[in-house]
Amino acid sequence: MIIYGDKRSGNCYKIQLVCALLNIQHEWIDIDVMAGECQTAEFKKLNPNAKIPLMVLDNGETLSESNAILNYLATNSALLPVDSFQYAKMLQWQFFEQYSHEPYIAVARFIKLYQGLPDNRLQEYQSKHEPGYKALNVMEKQLENTEYLIASELTCADLSLYAYTHVAHEGGFSLQAYPKIQAWLRRISSINGYIKMN
Amino acid sequence: MIIYGDKRSGNCYKIQLVCALLNIQHEWIDIDVMAGECQTAEFKKLNPNAKIPLMVLDNGETLSESNAILNYLATNSALLPVDSFQYAKMLQWQFFEQYSHEPYIAVARFIKLYQGLPDNRLQEYQSKHEPGYKALNVMEKQLENTEYLIASELTCADLSLYAYTHVAHEGGFSLQAYPKIQAWLRRISSINGYIKMN
Repeated sequence: MIIYGDKRSGNCYKIQLVCALLNIQHEWIDIDVMAGECQTAEFKKLNPNAKIPLMVLDNGETLSESNAILNYLATNSALLPVDSFQYAKMLQWQFFEQYSHEPYIAVARFIKLYQGLPDNRLQEYQSKHEPGYKALNVMEKQLENTEYLIASELTCADLSLYAYTHVAHEGGFSLQAYPKIQAWLRRISSINGYIKMN
Repeated sequence: MIIYGDKRSGNCYKIQLVCALLNIQHEWIDIDVMAGECQTAEFKKLNPNAKIPLMVLDNGETLSESNAILNYLATNSALLPVDSFQYAKMLQWQFFEQYSHEPYIAVARFIKLYQGLPDNRLQEYQSKHEPGYKALNVMEKQLENTEYLIASELTCADLSLYAYTHVAHEGGFSLQAYPKIQAWLRRISSINGYIKMN
């Protein structure tokens, strides 16, 4: 199994983290997004949507979208709820991550960290903060009631949202007003097998 | 079971469609997004992320995010692949829908259909077309090889992407250059139990 990814990307880190937690062997191929390595004809043959992370199985089958890869790699592990409603709640948080969290927190971080906050994206960067904090509010509210996003067990939903939340400061976000998120981040980083980003 | 939704919304239509196909009884409560009915304190108690569709089970449990609700309602039906890799491919297309398709095609449609294309959103509206067509290109490429998005069987991935693709013209998109998408739309609309939007 090959994973194509960029080690600074939270979406790619989700895959590295689940591989570490579940001890999944894989070959990692670095892709430099900034150098356009997702946009080559060769890469687009593997993923027509020209995005990483991308998984290629030994039989040549490909899988894209970080949360789809994450859940696939977690098949039959304790990271996936067995109950169908709990499983649906996990998906709820993962779709929330991709629609209401990542486009603000990860994109603000991309503009600041990867691009060095250029003048022509400053307004866009600033516009990411209000909806990004709204997403953090939704998470804080949940974590006031439960230890992890789905009740008291770590699931893939936590890994999906951990990825960009724990580096939100790199996008200009402060977590000072979010004590429950802070405690949740510490809880995840102390799990057996945890690895840091990069 | 109660579904809160807006009948013009593609995300809500996914739920109506799966309920029709699988003959799932439910109570529907109309929510007028434009009148701010998602933003009331009462609604936010049910969904802190203030979005529809929202499902409330008889036991009071809530579930948001259209694709999470869709998959939950399809539990144990033929709309969910049994094979774990095929299931992951379904999720891949659903995450693609929420990240690379809906934010362009559905949002362009929202600006045009709901808001009447106001001057202050014209530039944003126009900026949605290039990435929206990119998403359609990715779908067309897949549908050159397979009858449905996952091989030859209708799955929830098709329902997720059907919702806004079949009304893409309401967002200013032309499907003329996409014969495979057109044939796929016709295939879905002729399925037993199919209902139209609205």
